[in-house]
Amino acid sequence: MSRFLHKKYNPLMPYDTSGEVESMKGYIRLNTNESPFPPSPKAIAYSHEASLGLNYYSDPECRLLAEKISELNNVKPSEIVFGNGSDEILNFIFTAFCEKGAAFPNITYSFYKILAKFHEVSYITVPLKNFMISPSYYRNVKGRTLLIANPNAPTGIALTLSELEEIITSNPESLIVIDEAYVDFGAESAVKFIHEYDNVIITRTFSKSRSMAGARLGWCMTNEEIANDIKKIKNTVTPYNINAMTQAAGLGALEDEEYTRRNIDIICRVRDNVKNRLIEMGFSVLNSSANFLFVKHEAISGEKIFNSLRKNRIMIRHFSSPVSISDYNRITIGTPEQMQVLLEVMKGIIENEREQHNAKD
Amino acid sequence: MSRFLHKKYNPLMPYDTSGEVESMKGYIRLNTNESPFPPSPKAIAYSHEASLGLNYYSDPECRLLAEKISELNNVKPSEIVFGNGSDEILNFIFTAFCEKGAAFPNITYSFYKILAKFHEVSYITVPLKNFMISPSYYRNVKGRTLLIANPNAPTGIALTLSELEEIITSNPESLIVIDEAYVDFGAESAVKFIHEYDNVIITRTFSKSRSMAGARLGWCMTNEEIANDIKKIKNTVTPYNINAMTQAAGLGALEDEEYTRRNIDIICRVRDNVKNRLIEMGFSVLNSSANFLFVKHEAISGEKIFNSLRKNRIMIRHFSSPVSISDYNRITIGTPEQMQVLLEVMKGIIENEREQHNAKD
Repeated sequence: MSRFLHKKYNPLMPYDTSGEVESMKGYIRLNTNESPFPPSPKAIAYSHEASLGLNYYSDPECRLLAEKISELNNVKPSEIVFGNGSDEILNFIFTAFCEKGAAFPNITYSFYKILAKFHEVSYITVPLKNFMISPSYYRNVKGRTLLIANPNAPTGIALTLSELEEIITSNPESLIVIDEAYVDFGAESAVKFIHEYDNVIITRTFSKSRSMAGARLGWCMTNEEIANDIKKIKNTVTPYNINAMTQAAGLGALEDEEYTRRNIDIICRVRDNVKNRLIEMGFSVLNSSANFLFVKHEAISGEKIFNSLRKNRIMIRHFSSPVSISDYNRITIGTPEQMQVLLEVMKGIIENEREQHNAKD
Repeated sequence: MSRFLHKKYNPLMPYDTSGEVESMKGYIRLNTNESPFPPSPKAIAYSHEASLGLNYYSDPECRLLAEKISELNNVKPSEIVFGNGSDEILNFIFTAFCEKGAAFPNITYSFYKILAKFHEVSYITVPLKNFMISPSYYRNVKGRTLLIANPNAPTGIALTLSELEEIITSNPESLIVIDEAYVDFGAESAVKFIHEYDNVIITRTFSKSRSMAGARLGWCMTNEEIANDIKKIKNTVTPYNINAMTQAAGLGALEDEEYTRRNIDIICRVRDNVKNRLIEMGFSVLNSSANFLFVKHEAISGEKIFNSLRKNRIMIRHFSSPVSISDYNRITIGTPEQMQVLLEVMKGIIENEREQHNAKD
């Protein structure tokens, strides 16, 4: 570190993007929960049109996008704020609201902890119960901001709306952030709660079901008062946070819901097939409502499976900590063809392991 | 504000983007220092290509862009960090380095003060001398981070490299940030100083000479140690800060330096012509090395000129404070045709004023 860096940042541990490099070299990328499908042709056409006028600043308020999302989600444009990915929305939330601390599951999106540390927000982690978020565990959080990914990652397991409502109503002093990055793959959106309670923020992203991870676009929906607070932060540090091409691509994607719906259907069907095949191979597989599966083999360590697939140019996501999930891997659902390759390679890995095991006996 | 917002953000004053709305409704936009020319055809083609693969995350390290900038500026890729506009680089700098405070001219890019307040960085402002930054005024800044826009805005006046070097050498305890947003229009880049001194950061942007304000792309060049500090902050709060289309457009723009050079030549030529015409009309015009002019009329207030132009659907930038510049306006250099319209309308405004004045006599 240089002599100029604020000492408090010395121990920072950035988000791990190390899987990216290999993902770009012709590997099958099943490690970052991207969509295997390109964005809607309408997204591509609109962003191209926007690129012709790039010499002008982008709309700081993303008006056209806000109107379209308003229409589709039954919220007002004034209840929406956009981020450079939903990660930026999370960053605004940790910046603005977490004076009393934060709380989130001990196994969830790792970015919450990274942001809490960065912003010096004290946080507690709440254990899962059989890999599930248990509303009853969130009864004594003392005004801490709650972050609940629904479905949760990397488990893929979703809460019902009544379970979410239990968390909201039992914590009237807390802000409840429901991160719906994966909601389109099988969970129900809690967006209606922003009008029923005054302490709810829903975050969403274009990165998953809308095939736009590379465009960096996320948004949140919340009541106008909280939305104005977030806008105040946004307009202070990054007034033009969403570039013009991304705004246009987002609009195109939203105008082509049929395309999105078709891709989601394929991914869910493939997910359920792959799940069954993996179970036949000796995996336990959590009940996913997302575009990924969280899986553990009865005989082979998670690390070994990860490394063996990597040698075969297939990237999945392995978490070495916490130890309770170190035998699991998270596998993104790719195209039917990619998943066929995965299953064949996986079969080879398991047979090979069995042979080695038998040879030792 | 909501009951959840951290009290310290209550008095926040966001960056003023209010001119934007009208700018979008067929006004001639001479108010935000955008380029009047579209981006390079290569930028457009590359971003289109990138949009086809938007389902994948963008490269968190912007490798291709870094290599190209490295080539063009005689720096190493490891000495470069990218931001979502150079504004984001400035935000990283205020986040990471300003423990001893900040110092900048009393008349300069307004974003420095906004960021200082947001990050609770104590700052001092240093007066200009005849609208110029005077190196001798920066001799007692006590380790504060110095922000020097070169050319300065809204004056447009540039420092020479030896003047900048005087500021750098007289402040070895300070980090010196040289904001070269407008450097291509007539100033000399100080980038070589990043290898000669250990306390220099150069920030640059694609928003001005490269016609990409709407793409949100900026970068900084500094020694590897400081670059790593900035990357650590970047990778913690926003690992994928630059979307794939913008990365591609940036590369396209850099591969078409001839296009950029041609546009700069036109803008500089038009600027010098417009300057002469405005002087003939009774304006005093500062000596601009940027893509804008800072002008004051001998008989008509700055506010009146701003409002009269606005009625004629021409937007320029008026600063109501500080009072020392409230009779000035900043006029971005547009196309020759746009500037012809400006000059004609301006002539009408002045004649009208003269008639009214004579009628009163």
